[in-house]
Amino acid sequence: MTAPLSVAIAGLGTVGAGVLTVLLQNAELIAARAGRPIVVTAVAARNRSRDRGVPLDGLRWYDDPVAMAGDAKADVVVELIGGSDGPARALVEAALEGGKPVVTANKALLALRGADLARRAEAAGVVLAYEAAVAGGIPAIKALREGLAANRISRVTGILNGTCNYILTCMREQKREFGDVLAEAQKLGYAEADPSFDIDGVDAAHKLAILAALAFGRPVEFGAVHVEGIRNITATDIALAEELGYRIKLLGIAEAGEAGVAARVHPCMVPVSHPIAVVDGVYNAVVAEGDFVGRVVLEGRGAGAGPTASAVVADLIDIARGRQTPVWGAGSAALSSEPSRPMDSHQGAYYLRLMVLDRPGVIADVTGILRDHGVSLESMIQRGRSAVGAVPVVLTTHDCGEAAMRDALRRIAALDAVLEPPALIRIETL
Amino acid sequence: MTAPLSVAIAGLGTVGAGVLTVLLQNAELIAARAGRPIVVTAVAARNRSRDRGVPLDGLRWYDDPVAMAGDAKADVVVELIGGSDGPARALVEAALEGGKPVVTANKALLALRGADLARRAEAAGVVLAYEAAVAGGIPAIKALREGLAANRISRVTGILNGTCNYILTCMREQKREFGDVLAEAQKLGYAEADPSFDIDGVDAAHKLAILAALAFGRPVEFGAVHVEGIRNITATDIALAEELGYRIKLLGIAEAGEAGVAARVHPCMVPVSHPIAVVDGVYNAVVAEGDFVGRVVLEGRGAGAGPTASAVVADLIDIARGRQTPVWGAGSAALSSEPSRPMDSHQGAYYLRLMVLDRPGVIADVTGILRDHGVSLESMIQRGRSAVGAVPVVLTTHDCGEAAMRDALRRIAALDAVLEPPALIRIETL
Repeated sequence: MTAPLSVAIAGLGTVGAGVLTVLLQNAELIAARAGRPIVVTAVAARNRSRDRGVPLDGLRWYDDPVAMAGDAKADVVVELIGGSDGPARALVEAALEGGKPVVTANKALLALRGADLARRAEAAGVVLAYEAAVAGGIPAIKALREGLAANRISRVTGILNGTCNYILTCMREQKREFGDVLAEAQKLGYAEADPSFDIDGVDAAHKLAILAALAFGRPVEFGAVHVEGIRNITATDIALAEELGYRIKLLGIAEAGEAGVAARVHPCMVPVSHPIAVVDGVYNAVVAEGDFVGRVVLEGRGAGAGPTASAVVADLIDIARGRQTPVWGAGSAALSSEPSRPMDSHQGAYYLRLMVLDRPGVIADVTGILRDHGVSLESMIQRGRSAVGAVPVVLTTHDCGEAAMRDALRRIAALDAVLEPPALIRIETL
Repeated sequence: MTAPLSVAIAGLGTVGAGVLTVLLQNAELIAARAGRPIVVTAVAARNRSRDRGVPLDGLRWYDDPVAMAGDAKADVVVELIGGSDGPARALVEAALEGGKPVVTANKALLALRGADLARRAEAAGVVLAYEAAVAGGIPAIKALREGLAANRISRVTGILNGTCNYILTCMREQKREFGDVLAEAQKLGYAEADPSFDIDGVDAAHKLAILAALAFGRPVEFGAVHVEGIRNITATDIALAEELGYRIKLLGIAEAGEAGVAARVHPCMVPVSHPIAVVDGVYNAVVAEGDFVGRVVLEGRGAGAGPTASAVVADLIDIARGRQTPVWGAGSAALSSEPSRPMDSHQGAYYLRLMVLDRPGVIADVTGILRDHGVSLESMIQRGRSAVGAVPVVLTTHDCGEAAMRDALRRIAALDAVLEPPALIRIETL
């Protein structure tokens, strides 16, 4: 057995403490698989006195994470601070600059600075690994970058945010409304006090940007991802989806087509028969479709100290073994320059729910507008009667253009008889 | 870009032709991911004139695969001949002996000769890669050996034979009997003319032996796998399973416990709510449970030229990049010597279906025997009446010992009123 791999960890929150725990608890097994012991020798965190449930004696302590990048005895730096700028970015840049491999769980950093960081890692000839940044413990990065590397990937789809999937699952199973379930999730610690990062789709979009870059071999481009969250999903829509044979999931979908790569995060109606439809609760899933392998589905826990630490340590084992892969699967010079396709050019089927006054002519007005915009209907459900209040009308469409649908929707929303903002959910047959 | 990786392929059946096709069709993309072109330069096959749908001009041709191992211009040998002995084994041994890395899709070879071959690869300091040997295109070997390497794995479960899964799926969906569906599958090319290797569980057992060795870091031991196939599964049992909330699947299950590692392949009743229950048709799935990562499910096509070639080429890309992993995840010296646990010591729940004469006292006899052997019942279904013929009686048990259950079954089968051999299917709550 050769010399231990000496690890310096910045950030001792739950994931940092989790990494220390994994390395201690499975030390022997990890040494066997890594070919040498992997030992944490330095840490950087602000609070020296907080009890993190793991022994920290004898570790070199840094108050400033960037200073830790210069630790001459550390073979590799693990960044678990978070954020796309500030100390996380400064630390990673300093470590790469100094020729040290970096392992990070930071999806925002990779999604927003990944193209630049890849060039820095390549220039320094060191690894920048980030298995933990996407889908927690699921080895999705390794699968796309190595396991499926023989394939031209046509599409990658994922349930990438456990908070959203948990909320949607509870709403469906317990027939409750979004705000109610969110408040409970916050109490239980499944959602943050400020939940917007999760429920507005930003976190999923960071991860999708990373998956899209890997799947299609192009520099990561977060700005090109279309993002919508789950705030407007109602219990009514979930029940209606069920009736139509669908489940509502917040999906990230990246597709390669003739006009370029499209990447989008938004609520979707997925057929209940698709494997991704039954991935519930805090589980994440990644589905990749390759020209030779066909469809591959990976499912597992997408967050939490254990799964995230599992991914971080897998990266450390790769580094200990000397296994190297370029950040985006191929060297910068070999990356594709395929353009991104804007959401306006999306083609697909739609679910449209309106709350309308129950009076003659409303359906004629609505369907007339859809016809004017070239949107053809697949089905319509109109049910119940009400002399005073609103009744729901549900329309599903055949494939049509996003831009046309949006224009039609604007006109429909403006009708006197349409009482609430219409709900629009894309149908994905995948 | 550095010098191409020069590949010699032995065996030009559908998988061999598939590998050539992948390498040609995705040449540019593979070169980008591998850091250099991967080019087939030599082949070994018996029939030079057969049209395989791929160009073979300019390749060095060997009639004897073992002679090809000595090809000085080949950087790596791909073995696609099959079989645990004969030319496949001789070729792989000769290649390793000569210091050449080997990629193989041969599960029988790995399951039966893998411990010895690993020592040879280690002695020569070269890679022996076999992603294609288990679960086709699913990167299951990479996931267990690298992606989940930080975890102590407690159990690995798989749908590992597409032919069996296809037959069981058809039986359920079309309410047809085994023999009937098998005959059709043979006509469609989904089952071999001699199907015993698949339907008697041997192929799944080869793959499970490999997964168990990887999951638990011990030398592969095919002889320790308990094997049963699906010949005795009836449409009646499938319908009754459905009624009880289960699906019948042929599973491979390897578990680590205090008394050692148990590995078994047999038909199982799985709760319909478990992800593996809904993996249908020719799809395979591998479920790994790790102490930190929790449950990870991988699903995809388990056979066929495309998926298998995808896995072979992934191994070639690893070799082109210089990524190395010991054959069984750790060096021979670091492998565990945990004992294997025999099937007799298995504890679990059972489904038992009897065809009995509809007369007083039969149920009392049957349940009395079960009580005598310490088997306690969870449920009983008795339905229908028949003055002359047999009626089905279905019993499910709480967890009990395999040996006790087998003894009880022998006595029950010997009862006058029990008209057919009882059907016994293990219930796995996973």
